[in-house]
Amino acid sequence: MYRSHSCGELTTSDINKEVTLAGWVQKSRDKGFMIWVDLRDRYGITQLMFDEERTPIAMVEKAKTLGREFVIQVKGTVIERESKNPNMPTGDIEILVNELTVLNESLAPPIMIEDQTKDGEDIRMKYRYLDIRRNPVKNNLIFRHQVAMQVRTYLSQEGFIEVETPYLIKSTPEGARDFVVPSRMNEGQFYALPQSPQTFKQLLMVGGMDKYFQIVKCFRDEDLRADRQPEFTQIDCEMAFVEQEDILNVFEGLTKHLIKDIKGIDITDFPRMTYDEAMRTYGNDKPDIRFGMKFAELNALTQHKEFKVFNDAELVIGIAVPGGAAYTRKEIDKLIDWVKRPQVGALGMIYARCNDDGSFKSSVDKFYDQQDLSAWAEKTGAKAGDLICILSGATNKVRAQLSALRMELAERLGLRNPEEFAPLWVVDFPLLEWDEDTERYHAMHHPFTSPKPEDIALLDSKPGDVRANAYDLVLNGNEIGGGSIRIHDKETQALMFDHLGFTPEEANAQFGFLLDAFQYGAPPHGGIAFGLDRLVAILGGQETIRDFIAFPKNNSGRDVMIDAPATIDAVQLKELKIKLTLD
Amino acid sequence: MYRSHSCGELTTSDINKEVTLAGWVQKSRDKGFMIWVDLRDRYGITQLMFDEERTPIAMVEKAKTLGREFVIQVKGTVIERESKNPNMPTGDIEILVNELTVLNESLAPPIMIEDQTKDGEDIRMKYRYLDIRRNPVKNNLIFRHQVAMQVRTYLSQEGFIEVETPYLIKSTPEGARDFVVPSRMNEGQFYALPQSPQTFKQLLMVGGMDKYFQIVKCFRDEDLRADRQPEFTQIDCEMAFVEQEDILNVFEGLTKHLIKDIKGIDITDFPRMTYDEAMRTYGNDKPDIRFGMKFAELNALTQHKEFKVFNDAELVIGIAVPGGAAYTRKEIDKLIDWVKRPQVGALGMIYARCNDDGSFKSSVDKFYDQQDLSAWAEKTGAKAGDLICILSGATNKVRAQLSALRMELAERLGLRNPEEFAPLWVVDFPLLEWDEDTERYHAMHHPFTSPKPEDIALLDSKPGDVRANAYDLVLNGNEIGGGSIRIHDKETQALMFDHLGFTPEEANAQFGFLLDAFQYGAPPHGGIAFGLDRLVAILGGQETIRDFIAFPKNNSGRDVMIDAPATIDAVQLKELKIKLTLD
Repeated sequence: MYRSHSCGELTTSDINKEVTLAGWVQKSRDKGFMIWVDLRDRYGITQLMFDEERTPIAMVEKAKTLGREFVIQVKGTVIERESKNPNMPTGDIEILVNELTVLNESLAPPIMIEDQTKDGEDIRMKYRYLDIRRNPVKNNLIFRHQVAMQVRTYLSQEGFIEVETPYLIKSTPEGARDFVVPSRMNEGQFYALPQSPQTFKQLLMVGGMDKYFQIVKCFRDEDLRADRQPEFTQIDCEMAFVEQEDILNVFEGLTKHLIKDIKGIDITDFPRMTYDEAMRTYGNDKPDIRFGMKFAELNALTQHKEFKVFNDAELVIGIAVPGGAAYTRKEIDKLIDWVKRPQVGALGMIYARCNDDGSFKSSVDKFYDQQDLSAWAEKTGAKAGDLICILSGATNKVRAQLSALRMELAERLGLRNPEEFAPLWVVDFPLLEWDEDTERYHAMHHPFTSPKPEDIALLDSKPGDVRANAYDLVLNGNEIGGGSIRIHDKETQALMFDHLGFTPEEANAQFGFLLDAFQYGAPPHGGIAFGLDRLVAILGGQETIRDFIAFPKNNSGRDVMIDAPATIDAVQLKELKIKLTLD
Repeated sequence: MYRSHSCGELTTSDINKEVTLAGWVQKSRDKGFMIWVDLRDRYGITQLMFDEERTPIAMVEKAKTLGREFVIQVKGTVIERESKNPNMPTGDIEILVNELTVLNESLAPPIMIEDQTKDGEDIRMKYRYLDIRRNPVKNNLIFRHQVAMQVRTYLSQEGFIEVETPYLIKSTPEGARDFVVPSRMNEGQFYALPQSPQTFKQLLMVGGMDKYFQIVKCFRDEDLRADRQPEFTQIDCEMAFVEQEDILNVFEGLTKHLIKDIKGIDITDFPRMTYDEAMRTYGNDKPDIRFGMKFAELNALTQHKEFKVFNDAELVIGIAVPGGAAYTRKEIDKLIDWVKRPQVGALGMIYARCNDDGSFKSSVDKFYDQQDLSAWAEKTGAKAGDLICILSGATNKVRAQLSALRMELAERLGLRNPEEFAPLWVVDFPLLEWDEDTERYHAMHHPFTSPKPEDIALLDSKPGDVRANAYDLVLNGNEIGGGSIRIHDKETQALMFDHLGFTPEEANAQFGFLLDAFQYGAPPHGGIAFGLDRLVAILGGQETIRDFIAFPKNNSGRDVMIDAPATIDAVQLKELKIKLTLD
């Protein structure tokens, strides 16, 4: 044993104890006759003291040679500090050292091991093993562990069984792109890494497992957008003999438990909103409801005058920005530039200031009188001192644009408090969504989601109007979980595959095992999957998942620390019977 | 909610309650005026009763149409059974049904959903979702979950943090063959799936995480021997600032806790044995010590006569088989045939019966007298009524042969009691082992294992004699865990790579990140990894890991249920810039 105590536990009650500590040199101060060293480990920092009068001189000399991040072991006596540090748990004591052993030296570290870092992400990732020594990263990983343990303990107590499903499965062309794995023993054939254990968890329900969960890695070979990872972790869950209401209740319970246990915050029953309402009110299927600025539809109040922009628009919508009347003309112009950026894509923005005296001043006073503007204010809920911002255009586009503006303004106004938690169920998602590229309908959730029985008749006539028994759990404007009640009979599943453009042969080749399984007594079932990376980040009050992953990949899917992916041996390629076809 | 209760919980205290149950039809008996149906779910079986006099006639008629494995929902009243079944938790009651809904029909299942199965493994695996409905498989999966939860809870309480390490890493030619994953975004490059998170857990120690664990899937593209899987699960652990003794203590604690908590058995301190002693005494580095039959070296007692077979042998070893003197000549001949099978490979076997009257009768009476045989009996510990079996030949081969015979005899004698647990630490493994194929030394454990400091001097002169700080935890003749104290300085690690035949360039290309990390203050560290599949099987009193894996692969690495691996689209190959080169 290299130590009798950690660097985070000694207090005045340990005074006079002989102790052995081991850890890293955080910093040292050399006063000539006295040297202080801050010794760090996972548990804290303890101050060491080398005193010419009381420490063997050879040890004092050795202490002078210590550099940052040297790994040392010391033996000594716990003594009371002369100048105490009330900000440290160990701040009342220090160790008077009588023996020092250098366990390992260290070159000057290429990044600073400090809470606040000025080092760029690239170098931090290359030396991630040093970055992890920093408290914020270390604490994030410990926090992630605590959340995962809470999830497992809660679900186990609720009767869920964690079952490991396979990682080497079969590629399916539906959905995102698979990572594939050539099989040496089955020449010319490939495994795929799972995008989710979806079909396996359904088969576990067919198998009578009743309540399943798994914290599991999933894989998607996507062109990485910011803050996406090719491998990510899901809390994957499924239950048999349930309806949507049952799933919402169980996992609302889990989420409440996490927020209560980890953040100490009691949350009452989660509000629910249909997908349609979310899109109408927030322009977004994962609205952040910590703040207002709800959309007001202004078509009826704006299309009776000569303002062609509004008159030609499919949708005119506005929001009331609290306190926004105080924005200068320049600030408003900047806001207009912001919505016109290509990432947002609005053609312009109409605004109206709600003055303190009850009058209004708009950018379209030429077309609209005070009575019009007053009606807009009433509809958007704008009060004196607020600014009404209005966008117009094609419904889907303008909703997305105003949603982006709403989020940006909330950010600027400090309305996105990371210590406030506002969960929301969004329900009644559409079953299908139109894909412009392939010019056909795709499953919005996945092909195993059940349509609402009352909407099935619309499948042929108005496929876009069919609603699914699908739901998302939204937390602070992020989708943290999503799921559905599944199809559990062969006929409906075959009908779905048909509507998704599968021939019966294709459906059988890909999912024959599932269609078969549905013929041998499949129970009604449904489930949900949470993105653990995102959930942990939000519970931790942050939005970047990379900070909660020990060894993340960069936006090119590379691990810059180990330098992967990499080329492989010609022998390996030959054994796998594959050849590179680079240009 | 499809049910008010499960099928495993109703007792006489629920009599007269109106309940709703859902589940599968296990079987039904139709007496014409009365129908009994056994309704099954994960939690148990409840008997349903349809009575012409008390159940609506339409429901009785519908009940007559129920087939095995139909999924149904019933509403009814809990009543006391006339003929109780004391073998079932719900055996005192039944449900008088007044409403029956068929939730899903079932074709006649291709395998029997019974505890005892006569169905072959192939068909059970093809319909694994039905196989899982059988109690033995279902209970194994629940048992696995319970073991995993115990491991997580125990290690968390001991201050270990579960950290997820990446699945998409870099291929290393050392060790077993990697599964590789072509990277689309990094053309011509490949990820590899981890054979273990070895280097990552070491980097977490460099990163100050102090105590790490992870229950994690690992992958090896090996030609599968019986009961091996291409993907398998490890309990992977690492600690910093520890010596071998610390690791043994912590994980002895974990193992004791599991055996106590799960099997209710208290085990005292685990015995320890060096690798050398294990090989000498049991011919095996994972000896089953639930029974004796220890090896006795008989060279000195056998090589003084004219028996050339023994005189020419490098090693002559024997065991005493309890009660074996009673074997007939025919039985002994069969035993001799058994050791001569190619899988064992002995050239023959010499034996001596220890008669009840104190005399001996051997197959080599021509060469050895009663005094010789008496000396053999003393050395092997054979008592009156035992049989001494002796093999001879080259040391390593003959030890392996006698070990195989010892295990076979123990099996036949019923000495391998699955409810008895005999753990054992095997320590002081050799650092290197000679590989006949490549004609060079390989790391016996892995290249990161530290040599014993006092043996380092032998690295050049007698590499095979260098012992490592490596240890295995053996349970009932199975290696359930293995680990080592790691190298934590760049010089020793470079020395090891050199002795394993890496050029400095190769070492840097493969493991430069680790060598780098060792320069920035790497603490002393070590760890262990348990094979969860095997551990669970042994704790469950079985030896076949497939029975404890939800969706195992067969010996060709195929999942016969989903039919994977499979061919993939030409489009996928093209995107990955690879081409098949089949013969």
